[in-house]
Amino acid sequence: MNLDSIVTPTMIVDREKVQDNISRMSIKASGQGIRFRPHFKTHQSAAVGEWFRPYGVRAITVSSLEMAVYFANHGWDDILVAFPINLRQLDVVASLAARIHLSVLVESIQSVEILGKKIAHPLDIWIKIDSGNGRTGIDWRDGERTLEILRAASHFARLTIRGLLTHAGNTYSAASIEEICQRYQASVQRMLELRAALESAGGGHMEVSVGDTPGCSLCESLGAVDEIRPGNFVFFDSMMLKLGVCRFDQVASVVACPVVALHPEREEVLIYGGAVHLSKDYFLEDGKVKHGYIVPLGPEGWGTPLEGAYMARLSQEHGIMHLPQKYSGSIAIGGLVGVVPAHVCLAVSALGRYWTTEGKEIITVNCA
Amino acid sequence: MNLDSIVTPTMIVDREKVQDNISRMSIKASGQGIRFRPHFKTHQSAAVGEWFRPYGVRAITVSSLEMAVYFANHGWDDILVAFPINLRQLDVVASLAARIHLSVLVESIQSVEILGKKIAHPLDIWIKIDSGNGRTGIDWRDGERTLEILRAASHFARLTIRGLLTHAGNTYSAASIEEICQRYQASVQRMLELRAALESAGGGHMEVSVGDTPGCSLCESLGAVDEIRPGNFVFFDSMMLKLGVCRFDQVASVVACPVVALHPEREEVLIYGGAVHLSKDYFLEDGKVKHGYIVPLGPEGWGTPLEGAYMARLSQEHGIMHLPQKYSGSIAIGGLVGVVPAHVCLAVSALGRYWTTEGKEIITVNCA
Repeated sequence: MNLDSIVTPTMIVDREKVQDNISRMSIKASGQGIRFRPHFKTHQSAAVGEWFRPYGVRAITVSSLEMAVYFANHGWDDILVAFPINLRQLDVVASLAARIHLSVLVESIQSVEILGKKIAHPLDIWIKIDSGNGRTGIDWRDGERTLEILRAASHFARLTIRGLLTHAGNTYSAASIEEICQRYQASVQRMLELRAALESAGGGHMEVSVGDTPGCSLCESLGAVDEIRPGNFVFFDSMMLKLGVCRFDQVASVVACPVVALHPEREEVLIYGGAVHLSKDYFLEDGKVKHGYIVPLGPEGWGTPLEGAYMARLSQEHGIMHLPQKYSGSIAIGGLVGVVPAHVCLAVSALGRYWTTEGKEIITVNCA
Repeated sequence: MNLDSIVTPTMIVDREKVQDNISRMSIKASGQGIRFRPHFKTHQSAAVGEWFRPYGVRAITVSSLEMAVYFANHGWDDILVAFPINLRQLDVVASLAARIHLSVLVESIQSVEILGKKIAHPLDIWIKIDSGNGRTGIDWRDGERTLEILRAASHFARLTIRGLLTHAGNTYSAASIEEICQRYQASVQRMLELRAALESAGGGHMEVSVGDTPGCSLCESLGAVDEIRPGNFVFFDSMMLKLGVCRFDQVASVVACPVVALHPEREEVLIYGGAVHLSKDYFLEDGKVKHGYIVPLGPEGWGTPLEGAYMARLSQEHGIMHLPQKYSGSIAIGGLVGVVPAHVCLAVSALGRYWTTEGKEIITVNCA
């Protein structure tokens, strides 16, 4: 790793760790007979996408139609857009459906009918279910409304109802590993019950798609689902570390940031690395807002987190690190530190590109 | 304003309001004999930069060397980089100093000595003072350390000590308009006292540069300073509205976002507009986290904020709006709403481009 070439906040990714993370999740899914449809919104890059192919990955998830177009242009032909359909982009849906196997999310009869009337090519439909997260989707207890959507879709020959999809995002706010697994399992249970009820009511066969990184990483049994869609696991981040979702040696990316000023009298260091590089996302630990953990950097890669050190405050370009006094001798103006971002998906989006530890530049959809 | 052409989260800027905001700040500064060196980190665009020239603006502030290069390439030749010098980018400093009148910030003897030895062209030096904000800079009470930096700089003929610079960022956390002005005035007072003490100690004449948007907008008298550097005032945002820094009719930008799903049972609406568009920045009001206020959009522009509506939660692409029941009839799936972002500088950085209400596309440094 050529640290001399790093002069501004720069994300570095360890390819071997990424491949280990992909391998582990892939084996877990296939061992349980479940399709692994990884979410590409974390790495956002065609080059990293290629690292999934040796593990048999053919179907992927993205979070926007722009990302779907980008990955379709890079040879992916089975793409699920895991965001409720945006009716203002029907032309993009139409052109994608004409060239790849496209899946979209719906949660209203209105959207189903518009898709049915306006899209001239086959389109897979997943119904977005809120299995307890409270962000969006049809309440898992509302079988009636789900059935109405199924019936609306059945009028359109080009629409195929693939199944029910959820994101148990409430695992991110769990207080313990046990609670993560409880929430994941509860979410799966609700989805399976809804599917059974719909099938009894004549809704036909449906798949179940789930997939948050905490649940998919920690729960030994993924449940009787058909598909998982984790994304964050590919790199992991400080939030996942703090939740106990991964070990530190599985964290595959850090942002190298120049040290700009020292304030040992208040145990703080100013780095060049702010909200426009790391995003303002954060987690709470010991009552403190933390925007990331800190690791030392060397030519061989990064070391383990400095105990008690963390990113405490971010403004546009400024990052204020809390650095316990015992480390003050190891940090110098003009040097570099590594920040394990709180939320790596947003840091990738903010930076738009990153480098492997081997020195290869990786371009994302934002810079393509 | 052609709303039909807006299909994804899109920032819209009202040029006339921007020009009014520039005019007002410019008149205020010139009326008090103070140089107006606006911070361009908010609009980040060469095109909007041109809107400042009719008001006599010749000197500007930026937050990174990348931004300095961008604006130097667009005809600006007096640029202050208001971020402590990053010693890993001395080659950029050197090449900029060779072609424009460049000012940099220092807060250590080490940085001064390295600049003095390595930069072959004249360079203006400002000493970064912490006048109470606690982010970075030399404590305003530490005249001794400031004097040491002045003496270190005096050994290098190419370095010109221009003066003392501060950012009273603590005005952003003030509880009232009165407190904003108290904090601004306290910051100015501390800077003037430090200057007087340094001049008495033989430090030579120094300018004083200040400039947060809250203080510069609200305080009638800007104090006996030489320069102000506000940035946010050009667009304003929800945080400034909530602080009482601006009137709503002075807010010059909103982000138009597609409506994707309705959840009237919990007074929520899902929009396409998340952390990658608006940033995760927020403010607290009535004990609630708010990522922005909501305005209706029409062909003539935007209306006044919907009372009680706000962006409540953001994930990567999802935005959850709290929408009081009384408005539920006015919002439809497939329509657009306007979000006044919590922190417009970060939204500009995330989006990379915006459109004027007249339909002109504006490209920022991030997309250049």
